[in-house]
Amino acid sequence: MDFVYGPGKNHLFVPGPVNIPEPVIRAMNRNNEDYRSPAIPALTKTLLEDVKKIFKTTSGTPFLIPTTGTGAWESALTNTLSPGDRIVSFLIGQFSLLWIDQQQRLNFRVDVIESEWGRGADLDALASKLEADRSHTIKAVCIVHNETATGVTNDLAAVRKLLDGYRHPALVLVDGVSSICAIDFRMDEWGVDVALTGSQKALSMPTGMGIVCASPKAMEAAKTAKSVRVFFDWNDYLKFYKLGTFWPYTPSIQLLYGLRTALDLLFEEGLDNVIARHSRLGKATRLAVEAWGLKNCTQREDWFSDTVTAVVVPPYINSADVVKRAWTRYNLSLGLGLNKVAGKVFRIGHLGNLNELQLLGCLSGVEMVLRDVGYPVKLGSGVAAAAAHLRNTTPMITSRI
Amino acid sequence: MDFVYGPGKNHLFVPGPVNIPEPVIRAMNRNNEDYRSPAIPALTKTLLEDVKKIFKTTSGTPFLIPTTGTGAWESALTNTLSPGDRIVSFLIGQFSLLWIDQQQRLNFRVDVIESEWGRGADLDALASKLEADRSHTIKAVCIVHNETATGVTNDLAAVRKLLDGYRHPALVLVDGVSSICAIDFRMDEWGVDVALTGSQKALSMPTGMGIVCASPKAMEAAKTAKSVRVFFDWNDYLKFYKLGTFWPYTPSIQLLYGLRTALDLLFEEGLDNVIARHSRLGKATRLAVEAWGLKNCTQREDWFSDTVTAVVVPPYINSADVVKRAWTRYNLSLGLGLNKVAGKVFRIGHLGNLNELQLLGCLSGVEMVLRDVGYPVKLGSGVAAAAAHLRNTTPMITSRI
Amino acid sequence: MDFVYGPGKNHLFVPGPVNIPEPVIRAMNRNNEDYRSPAIPALTKTLLEDVKKIFKTTSGTPFLIPTTGTGAWESALTNTLSPGDRIVSFLIGQFSLLWIDQQQRLNFRVDVIESEWGRGADLDALASKLEADRSHTIKAVCIVHNETATGVTNDLAAVRKLLDGYRHPALVLVDGVSSICAIDFRMDEWGVDVALTGSQKALSMPTGMGIVCASPKAMEAAKTAKSVRVFFDWNDYLKFYKLGTFWPYTPSIQLLYGLRTALDLLFEEGLDNVIARHSRLGKATRLAVEAWGLKNCTQREDWFSDTVTAVVVPPYINSADVVKRAWTRYNLSLGLGLNKVAGKVFRIGHLGNLNELQLLGCLSGVEMVLRDVGYPVKLGSGVAAAAAHLRNTTPMITSRI
Amino acid sequence: MDFVYGPGKNHLFVPGPVNIPEPVIRAMNRNNEDYRSPAIPALTKTLLEDVKKIFKTTSGTPFLIPTTGTGAWESALTNTLSPGDRIVSFLIGQFSLLWIDQQQRLNFRVDVIESEWGRGADLDALASKLEADRSHTIKAVCIVHNETATGVTNDLAAVRKLLDGYRHPALVLVDGVSSICAIDFRMDEWGVDVALTGSQKALSMPTGMGIVCASPKAMEAAKTAKSVRVFFDWNDYLKFYKLGTFWPYTPSIQLLYGLRTALDLLFEEGLDNVIARHSRLGKATRLAVEAWGLKNCTQREDWFSDTVTAVVVPPYINSADVVKRAWTRYNLSLGLGLNKVAGKVFRIGHLGNLNELQLLGCLSGVEMVLRDVGYPVKLGSGVAAAAAHLRNTTPMITSRI
Repeated sequence: MDFVYGPGKNHLFVPGPVNIPEPVIRAMNRNNEDYRSPAIPALTKTLLEDVKKIFKTTSGTPFLIPTTGTGAWESALTNTLSPGDRIVSFLIGQFSLLWIDQQQRLNFRVDVIESEWGRGADLDALASKLEADRSHTIKAVCIVHNETATGVTNDLAAVRKLLDGYRHPALVLVDGVSSICAIDFRMDEWGVDVALTGSQKALSMPTGMGIVCASPKAMEAAKTAKSVRVFFDWNDYLKFYKLGTFWPYTPSIQLLYGLRTALDLLFEEGLDNVIARHSRLGKATRLAVEAWGLKNCTQREDWFSDTVTAVVVPPYINSADVVKRAWTRYNLSLGLGLNKVAGKVFRIGHLGNLNELQLLGCLSGVEMVLRDVGYPVKLGSGVAAAAAHLRNTTPMITSRI
Repeated sequence: MDFVYGPGKNHLFVPGPVNIPEPVIRAMNRNNEDYRSPAIPALTKTLLEDVKKIFKTTSGTPFLIPTTGTGAWESALTNTLSPGDRIVSFLIGQFSLLWIDQQQRLNFRVDVIESEWGRGADLDALASKLEADRSHTIKAVCIVHNETATGVTNDLAAVRKLLDGYRHPALVLVDGVSSICAIDFRMDEWGVDVALTGSQKALSMPTGMGIVCASPKAMEAAKTAKSVRVFFDWNDYLKFYKLGTFWPYTPSIQLLYGLRTALDLLFEEGLDNVIARHSRLGKATRLAVEAWGLKNCTQREDWFSDTVTAVVVPPYINSADVVKRAWTRYNLSLGLGLNKVAGKVFRIGHLGNLNELQLLGCLSGVEMVLRDVGYPVKLGSGVAAAAAHLRNTTPMITSRI
Repeated sequence: MDFVYGPGKNHLFVPGPVNIPEPVIRAMNRNNEDYRSPAIPALTKTLLEDVKKIFKTTSGTPFLIPTTGTGAWESALTNTLSPGDRIVSFLIGQFSLLWIDQQQRLNFRVDVIESEWGRGADLDALASKLEADRSHTIKAVCIVHNETATGVTNDLAAVRKLLDGYRHPALVLVDGVSSICAIDFRMDEWGVDVALTGSQKALSMPTGMGIVCASPKAMEAAKTAKSVRVFFDWNDYLKFYKLGTFWPYTPSIQLLYGLRTALDLLFEEGLDNVIARHSRLGKATRLAVEAWGLKNCTQREDWFSDTVTAVVVPPYINSADVVKRAWTRYNLSLGLGLNKVAGKVFRIGHLGNLNELQLLGCLSGVEMVLRDVGYPVKLGSGVAAAAAHLRNTTPMITSRI
Repeated sequence: MDFVYGPGKNHLFVPGPVNIPEPVIRAMNRNNEDYRSPAIPALTKTLLEDVKKIFKTTSGTPFLIPTTGTGAWESALTNTLSPGDRIVSFLIGQFSLLWIDQQQRLNFRVDVIESEWGRGADLDALASKLEADRSHTIKAVCIVHNETATGVTNDLAAVRKLLDGYRHPALVLVDGVSSICAIDFRMDEWGVDVALTGSQKALSMPTGMGIVCASPKAMEAAKTAKSVRVFFDWNDYLKFYKLGTFWPYTPSIQLLYGLRTALDLLFEEGLDNVIARHSRLGKATRLAVEAWGLKNCTQREDWFSDTVTAVVVPPYINSADVVKRAWTRYNLSLGLGLNKVAGKVFRIGHLGNLNELQLLGCLSGVEMVLRDVGYPVKLGSGVAAAAAHLRNTTPMITSRI
């Protein structure tokens, strides 16, 4: 039944889909239910209330859409914008590229602000555009909070500051797919208008739920946005929210119960503690990379990502061989380099329900693979660097003290 | 963790989502995996090959889309048609109504052919339209194979015959959500151009996968169709089919393994045997309704549905009370009457992984509920009628002989 | 993976192992854990406290033994008695027979009081023995509360009354395997010294845990009992109870979590409501048997069992054919007739996590099977009789009102 | 529901119960079944046939007993020996001690041959006893293949050689609880008469099944052995083996399916490859211990165990603090030192379904814990030593090449 089974656990370090904790797997281990019975609306009500907490919003309206991150993007765009609308979008890696591709195919006029892969969003370029846009033709700024392809985290507070500085009313649409629940994110404080993530990322669930949250301003925009949409139309949800039955079409019963447990686990650990854990694991990974004498694809410290690290391999090595070898010999799943950085980087995803020793196991595996493919890393060097940091920073598990 | 738990098993007789067999629940009870490793493409390849069998097609191209039936509708329409295209669509109940609503919101010009709820598609009206359409302005005929709201199965072979009779090139787009894997369906033989279903129906899986199959003619239409689409764009899939990696965005690992097992179970039982089982259970249900002295919402025998029976209650009873009582007292989940037939009918879904005694348990429950709400049914009467038919027709379980 | 799979759910109506509710299956769906970490003792502590409630004892000492009912029997006997001890034991069916066989092989001197199969314990014979036993040579009275082979429930309060009447100090050892959690049982009130059950019976868990509870008098006896025992020795448990680590050897982590959930479900429904539900289902089953014109193996109403009904088939039918046919054609699992009643009775188990419609589905299946094997039952007759009773007595599900 | 939950996976490195692979967890995720239907005997038949392979026997008779290792011990002894029989038993650690305690309480006359903890069985002492025993009063030699408390593997071939040398007919009873399926074991070749293991050890299942295998000579002994036994009596099994129904009492349906999958996984990997993997992991662990400058409790290389390593801590450290800290801070479960070595050693279990990176994660955790408790280990040193060995010896995963 399992294709290509290997002994022991698979070490899953792609930047998504990520490890699902046992309690979530258990919660989803169930038969279907009638979603029109009183039970599912009662459950949904708690989810919609609680999911706002992961966005740090009190005024936002959340949508749990049976789709992936790509669908969540489409939901964000088509509900707030009309064909021909001018938007500004940052191209800094493969996922921002794909979102821009979607924006263009959805017939928006996209001002692409490109950075070298490995660098963050060019905010100076944004400033120039805002400066020039006295007539407010820019309807939205689209930004990927954390570019999963290069391990770059953008500064959203700075984007807000710029907009405020220019008193520019553009909507801010944020892809938080690989940041929300892992990297500090503050929807209300940063004036984000639409934020979105996918269930298979830091929420540590299976794929299949796009979680989108809209600010009051975005909800207002949705009333007049002319983009054609049906499946992704928020209005269909709102109609059922009012009825108290919540669902315009059949949700996955399993994902609803899974989300309930995923949120319970996050809140039990404490969202701030979860973010601190990601920070700890991210830093440890970067220290290992440094100890190996390799370069981080991310070019500046303030862009370093706490959910994924893209490691640059020496020119004489094909990073795809690293990924292949890791999987074929050590049951370790790493992320490939994509598009412009294909063959040049491999990626270590360190997000979701993950702890220190899992990461150290992965790092020890990377060391062996690097040796296997011909890079003369000193075995144990990265693990030592990472462990030193982890030992200094890892708290006791609260429930066990 | 379970909202409103009741002792014993829930008797799930809504027409979707339906009961998931244990082997499928087991197959889905797993951690995430890297979908870019060789394992998932290898699995996907078998799925794409085997899923064609449930459509009875050899020439079709299947798509496994992370969405619901509503999304599958949108996929069928936007990939084959352009805004402004004229289409003919039959309105015979709530689900055909919703599809038409989608068609209109997607900017197609829809000729709606309406029937009284409880009747099938008006093929004479279609004939008139085809007759009149010498210039072939009709680009597609959209038809719901089985209208889940009223328990009406349309005659798809007759639609094909009409089109052929008029040598009309319109595409035939079929909603097979509550028919495929349960009611005889022959994509190639009937010249269906796009057929679709959802995982939570007769495939007996959780919600979350829209399964769409396109004929070569539909694939050709997809090359020029101008409807705006990204998430639902078949071309994005085709690109990855060619690469052999299959997925333009992250699939649900769990649903892939679930589908593998669901298909294995269907093939082990034999698709024709599965359809015969649905026919047996459908007939038994209708005999029970007759024995109770109640009317089937479906007005003519040739429209009777083998997957859902809509039962008309006497005017002095509110069918919503039947559904509520069934759930509140007997842990039995029945389907509500929707829209025009709200309060007037309740629905018994008898599709998916279900056997004779499960149905008889449900029917005995309906009898008790009917008495509870004031309808003087003779307890055991419907069960007896159904059982008589089942005893005559149920084969031995092949693996146990 | 499943041997002899059939479509739809298996209808499990053997008197054990019984249906496991989904929440228990979920709770057990987990990896192993270190049973010496603080987590497992913390869990065990709650179990030992709560399990006393199902015995209705406050003074008893419970043991959760990794064994089956047969092992639990051995635990009860060897911990309280010495080889050569005289005991009185009632033989009324296959399970009491097996226990007596065990008693004899463990070298106790057993006064067997035999009844015709289908009759309860002969308490008059016990009275005579107690009357004659002025010197208190009888060390224990062993009685099966509910004989699973014949569907006979014995009157434990009467046994206590007799012993008290004669001021006889004999221990009372009770097999409550098919009664506890289903039929009224009161350890303290009835002066039971050792009571026992198995996890796969009314607790609705997998097989593997023998649950034994000992009165202070039994615990006292355990100090001097000379029967050879190691695996089953309570003293080994007591040593670890004192240490607070609870386990002399490795327990099943999964069964511990399963028991936690099983108890939670019982308490949520309310133990008295659970017993009332069994009473309701038992009575309904007997009414069906009567309606079919068949005889209950149990010969007197006050012995009727609420957990299992042994149905006598006409002489021209082999009851094994009923069982075989039920399984082969209808995916219905019934209990065989055992030993003296082999071929003559089949058994319907109606214990554990079960509701009204599940039972009615079973009864409709039995009707079809009876017709299949040549007994001219009127289809629907038993269902009608059972449903009439159930409709009058089934309460609303508390959590759903 | 989970007591003391921590983020990420628990790193389970106690020497049992061990990690259960996902396919086994899945296989056990199921409702109960009638164990008297044809399905369970059909399944059992394959298990009894295949389980012989893990003992490397063709002539042995296997028993799958619903019990733990302690029960399996009792089964081995009571079925082959009579009270008062003289046996020779080696005391080399806590588990051999417990078995000897059982042997004495079961009324055998035990010649205990004691070794210092950390040393293997004293075969010279055995030789002397055999030499002296011309009249063959020694009925059995009892030996723990792998002493889990000290990480000592005994040389069974040498025991056989001794017996053969003296032409001594004593039975050889072997506790293979922490060796079988992990360390080379050859029942037939080494003339072992009873061998046993538990499901929660190298088979990587939950606790609950004692797996015992008896040679023809042991089966012959069972015919005349006078030890009192019922639950553990092989004869009760044999009776049902003959009937083809296999079970004298209710087995755990879940464990049967779990065993089926556990065996399938073992055979897919190849039993010899499984043993090689354990050898690789054992050696790697010992190299790490050496690199840390710590001593192995096992005093000689030829006794080194490939399933568990007992690490001696410096006198100024309490090994219980290592275990507590590992669990409380790093979600790492290590084994305590037991009895004579309590406080002095902690144990790393490296048996069952486990791979290289899991072990390296554990070793990196041990390093951090050692530093936490005040031992000045160089972080990364043990990981480096272990990784160097693993990188040289780990094969590609066969199914992935």
